[in-house]
Amino acid sequence: AILSAIDGALGAGPLAGRHVLVTSGPTHEPIDPVRYIANRSSGAQGAALAAALRDLGARVSFVTGPATVPPPHGVTVAPVQTAAEMLAAVEAHLPADAAVFAAAVADWRVDGAAAQKIKKGADGPPALRMAENPDILATVARMGAGRPALVVGFAAETEHVAEHATAKRLRKGCDWIVANDVSPATGIMGGAENAVTLITDAGAEVWPRLPKSEVARRLAARIAEALAP
Amino acid sequence: AILSAIDGALGAGPLAGRHVLVTSGPTHEPIDPVRYIANRSSGAQGAALAAALRDLGARVSFVTGPATVPPPHGVTVAPVQTAAEMLAAVEAHLPADAAVFAAAVADWRVDGAAAQKIKKGADGPPALRMAENPDILATVARMGAGRPALVVGFAAETEHVAEHATAKRLRKGCDWIVANDVSPATGIMGGAENAVTLITDAGAEVWPRLPKSEVARRLAARIAEALAP
Repeated sequence: AILSAIDGALGAGPLAGRHVLVTSGPTHEPIDPVRYIANRSSGAQGAALAAALRDLGARVSFVTGPATVPPPHGVTVAPVQTAAEMLAAVEAHLPADAAVFAAAVADWRVDGAAAQKIKKGADGPPALRMAENPDILATVARMGAGRPALVVGFAAETEHVAEHATAKRLRKGCDWIVANDVSPATGIMGGAENAVTLITDAGAEVWPRLPKSEVARRLAARIAEALAP
Repeated sequence: AILSAIDGALGAGPLAGRHVLVTSGPTHEPIDPVRYIANRSSGAQGAALAAALRDLGARVSFVTGPATVPPPHGVTVAPVQTAAEMLAAVEAHLPADAAVFAAAVADWRVDGAAAQKIKKGADGPPALRMAENPDILATVARMGAGRPALVVGFAAETEHVAEHATAKRLRKGCDWIVANDVSPATGIMGGAENAVTLITDAGAEVWPRLPKSEVARRLAARIAEALAP
């Protein structure tokens, strides 16, 4: 790891001269000026992956929601809050040779967030009308000209992990899906380890439970192989 | 401050022998295993207040949601996630001579949070049915036997601060309301300073904009005065 970090810093390594975009962290979708909808992503896996890609020599653009794990050094950081802001930042940082969407993007935002704090009134709780957020993975995976050569999505599942993720790969039009089981019992969301199933056109590979840093190194090495001339 | 901290550590100070309960931080209300509703409270003002009360000699019970600012040393910490858990922890830590409700408790929870991650389906966004959370401040302020001698609420407003907070004091049945303007433009929520209006039965006192630590010291001194024999 130390030697490959030095390679990366010297502009060597298998990803030298390549640009890889990584999204990471949760998004926060406002309800009103003080309330928002969030999710339990810490950004740990995305940050580890950006560091591993950097260590292989890639130039990394790191588009991150409000994560609890800080971004790695030596990458270009674009901080965002909402899914809409994340899509805009992704588009601003393309083209890229590969794009890895590790962020836990909110599927929905609150339709018409309130400009003032919603008061607790006599009418009882407000009904939160939701609107669908842009699908960042599918948007990039289905680009015509300018599509990254390799588009990788993540899937956070709580049941039927490989089955759901295989369907997601086809539905989104991406090349790979990195699927994991985020059931609270696994301790993966917010934890130090990850148990990944990698879905490619060749099928599903179940990886052993590993530290997130090691999952990142293996995935970065696979990306380097896929981009090798 | 150093002398009063030493007084506190020695069991001296104007609040020696007194028990004060402080709530702090946001609450997180689950939508499903990965998504939740949150708010922008950092827990900074509550943590500073607990430290200031400790420095005046009080025994402090600190019931805190998932705050970004860590709890102070020398207080009894009860960590919680939801409003329902916060009420249970408050009740478990009573009786107290004074109770200060600085937490930004969610007014609403999601009615029937999902046990599995809600999938993005063909039916479009889910409707989030909300249910009213228990009102912790009003519950304690309206206790008969065992009510703390001094019950203090906080009000986070974005407009008509003194007017809304004065109405809140009467509605909740508490003794004081510490009101602040959390409009995003003020930078108060998540920031280092606070601009407080203290509402008592004598009316509204507008305090100058001060560091949260200084607001805490002034408020702790007022609490000590109010509890003085």
